[in-house]
Amino acid sequence: MKFRVKDMDIATGGTLIAILNEKDAHKLDLHSADRILLKHNSKSVTCILDISESSKAVSEGSIGLFEEVLDRLNVKQGSLIEVKFTGKPESVKHIRDKLLGKELNPTELYHITDDITHDRLTDIEKTYFVSASFTNGLSVKEVIGLTKAMVHTGKMLKFPGITLDKHCIGGVPGNRTTMIVVPIVAAAGYIIPKTSSRAITSPAGTADTMECLAKVEMSEAKIKQVVKKTGACIVHGGSINLAPADDKIIEVEHPLSIDAEGQLLASVMAKKKSVSANYVLIDIPMGKSVKARNMKEANHLKKMFELIGRKLGMHVRVVITDGSHPIGNGIGPLLETEDVMAVLRNDPSAPRDLKEKSLMLAGLLLELVCECKKGDGLRKATEILESGKALEKMNRIIDAQGRQKKTELGKHHFPVHSSKSGKIVEIDNDIIAKVARIAGAPDDKGAGMYLTKKINDSVKKGDLLYTVYAVSEFKLGLAKEFLHKNNGYMVR
Amino acid sequence: MKFRVKDMDIATGGTLIAILNEKDAHKLDLHSADRILLKHNSKSVTCILDISESSKAVSEGSIGLFEEVLDRLNVKQGSLIEVKFTGKPESVKHIRDKLLGKELNPTELYHITDDITHDRLTDIEKTYFVSASFTNGLSVKEVIGLTKAMVHTGKMLKFPGITLDKHCIGGVPGNRTTMIVVPIVAAAGYIIPKTSSRAITSPAGTADTMECLAKVEMSEAKIKQVVKKTGACIVHGGSINLAPADDKIIEVEHPLSIDAEGQLLASVMAKKKSVSANYVLIDIPMGKSVKARNMKEANHLKKMFELIGRKLGMHVRVVITDGSHPIGNGIGPLLETEDVMAVLRNDPSAPRDLKEKSLMLAGLLLELVCECKKGDGLRKATEILESGKALEKMNRIIDAQGRQKKTELGKHHFPVHSSKSGKIVEIDNDIIAKVARIAGAPDDKGAGMYLTKKINDSVKKGDLLYTVYAVSEFKLGLAKEFLHKNNGYMVR
Repeated sequence: MKFRVKDMDIATGGTLIAILNEKDAHKLDLHSADRILLKHNSKSVTCILDISESSKAVSEGSIGLFEEVLDRLNVKQGSLIEVKFTGKPESVKHIRDKLLGKELNPTELYHITDDITHDRLTDIEKTYFVSASFTNGLSVKEVIGLTKAMVHTGKMLKFPGITLDKHCIGGVPGNRTTMIVVPIVAAAGYIIPKTSSRAITSPAGTADTMECLAKVEMSEAKIKQVVKKTGACIVHGGSINLAPADDKIIEVEHPLSIDAEGQLLASVMAKKKSVSANYVLIDIPMGKSVKARNMKEANHLKKMFELIGRKLGMHVRVVITDGSHPIGNGIGPLLETEDVMAVLRNDPSAPRDLKEKSLMLAGLLLELVCECKKGDGLRKATEILESGKALEKMNRIIDAQGRQKKTELGKHHFPVHSSKSGKIVEIDNDIIAKVARIAGAPDDKGAGMYLTKKINDSVKKGDLLYTVYAVSEFKLGLAKEFLHKNNGYMVR
Repeated sequence: MKFRVKDMDIATGGTLIAILNEKDAHKLDLHSADRILLKHNSKSVTCILDISESSKAVSEGSIGLFEEVLDRLNVKQGSLIEVKFTGKPESVKHIRDKLLGKELNPTELYHITDDITHDRLTDIEKTYFVSASFTNGLSVKEVIGLTKAMVHTGKMLKFPGITLDKHCIGGVPGNRTTMIVVPIVAAAGYIIPKTSSRAITSPAGTADTMECLAKVEMSEAKIKQVVKKTGACIVHGGSINLAPADDKIIEVEHPLSIDAEGQLLASVMAKKKSVSANYVLIDIPMGKSVKARNMKEANHLKKMFELIGRKLGMHVRVVITDGSHPIGNGIGPLLETEDVMAVLRNDPSAPRDLKEKSLMLAGLLLELVCECKKGDGLRKATEILESGKALEKMNRIIDAQGRQKKTELGKHHFPVHSSKSGKIVEIDNDIIAKVARIAGAPDDKGAGMYLTKKINDSVKKGDLLYTVYAVSEFKLGLAKEFLHKNNGYMVR
């Protein structure tokens, strides 16, 4: 059947959507989320059907098309196009099977991942996949299948021989160890092509922070050139489409703040596999506001990472760390960068917790790859850091990626004081993260907060706890308003 | 913050949607599916946030509103409105709990049902609820909580004293027993206010079929008047908002063709409870293409219906019937009406299977309410039918609801012949339903098919199996094309 195109003037940024009037859909026995094939001249595209009840939006005989569809078909408002019903993708059947409790094989997982990557599934269908994987769980075989599917539906960065990587499953503000571990390990002579993410719900991702110093968006060829020159890189993984299905899965997890374990494992391992890493250190922070809330959960995740690593032919070391409070003094891209550089410069005022954790991680990674004695790794890492070689390496990496102009700290700020005397027994990660975000981080690189007092410190009533920075009076006001209820510090 | 309104010229038919540009959303730390409160003069409304990546659709500083939102706020293109972030509904937390395996209490189920009824949840959130209920299951307590929530978030039709009802969980083409059982039971002196649905995926619902004879859309007051006059009615439940959450749940089940058991049980029982029924007969057809695929599944559903009925203070009788092939000769509203009227008229050519099944069901319902001996119900039902009292009652019901003008049978038709000789060992419900729908049923009341040969009949090569009817040559062509592959009959 032929329909007349209406330009809806909307872009989804992904899914291909076409809208028919309810009456036309009824006549053709089509339902919302059915797939239809649109043809115009030699071009054709399969879309997800949406149904309009109002004839104001799409009248009978018309078909409303979103920008992505108009582009692909190269049609304009008023053109006549051919519409045919086509079945749902095979993967919808596999998702249904998973919901019914069946174990999916690698081919089935590949179909699902491929359709997610190419926006061929609706939100409802993707949600059933995540939900079924969450409640029925994914077996080790399925996690491996999903990992491989994520890798092969994206780009790969190939490096020959020994390649190192590290990963933290996140949730701890200020925990910017990557930018210290990478130069130490590279200065020790190893290859470590680190791809990081930007913040999703946190005040800064490693990519956002590194961007205060160097360019982080670059082509595959440029990354290879940087790694060839310096042995390392710290870039934004999103710019080169590594395991792209992952982000699309996270989109449907976000509304319910769930972390389906199988998807988490596959997501991390796929990103490592995509950069050819074969020696991988994984940091699992444990604490009540992070993914692993207690030792049992942390140990379970540790075992799963180790098992899956083995099956994928990777050497994986997992370390469980304290994730109960922020690390470092700065929260927000610029302030975190300053912490990192202070540690690399061996500045006496550098935050000790960040330095110690970074050295511990670098040491473990070195021990994993050099098969040396326990303690040798930490000694070597400390030596590299204290000799200034790590700083030198970091500067080379920054120059190779392209040095940025200096970022300014937010001009507007206000202090938060303790309302009583005692010891700081708890700092709430979620509140600290939220305040920094409201103040403008990570988009405003100079926004965030500087923690003067840390966990276990003693304070007197009226002591400065931290200072909030923002680039506008308006955002500072929003942060102030939010802080009115709770400043995130518990003093007892 | 203030935003300038853009009229998106789209209606969802339900959910309240507002769209912000990606950059504005980022600044305010808002994500897709977050809830925002919009204010204009004295009016305010909570919307679900959608995010536009393109500034063509919604530019920075603007907010795109769908028709429903424009109406509620009474604003136009270009107005300035106030936008505030508000938390997600409490029910999202409950859905998350269900996903994590928690049993929900009646208050939590009420919140979820109320938010579903009033379109306050996104597709993703609703899908998690259905999916979690499907995989983790709903306990008997939860089904009862959900049933009561569905009843109390909709309208109720109150009748004092003994009130009968029947329900079939569906899937069998031509199975139009309700229109025979209701007049028999009413002629026996009982109150049976039957509300039925329209077809969702079948070629005719009872409401579509009854509509060939009488009006089926009417107010609560009119229904009460019809029941007062005749003791019965056969109307469309959708017109008076009985347990409205149910349809909205079905919308998210449809894309994966799943039937979450808990939701099915609650849906049926809520519709019965909403009409004050206290003596209820439930028909569970069993067969490979219907909900209960084998005796084990059918028996399980039977037990659940009986248990939940008891807990809700209803007398429930469940009967498991043969759902493996169509019943009656006609498929489609008009042709099914003709079968029903032939049975009521005691026409010797009336389909025997439909007559027998209807008498059996009417008999069981009479036995349930009069507590008489086994077999007495069937005898009484047969006597009422054969005496013409059921036909007389049906005519009174039709007159009370408002008699319709006669519908015409589709003028375009083609015969389907057997391609070999043998016995008809299988008739595929799904193919029969699909052909009738493509031919135009249920919207074209005169479309459908007339089955000349039925299950177990012997046929010779070239014998007429059935005739397809349509109101246009075009639709007949579509049905012909579909039948090209498989006519749904297996002859062996």
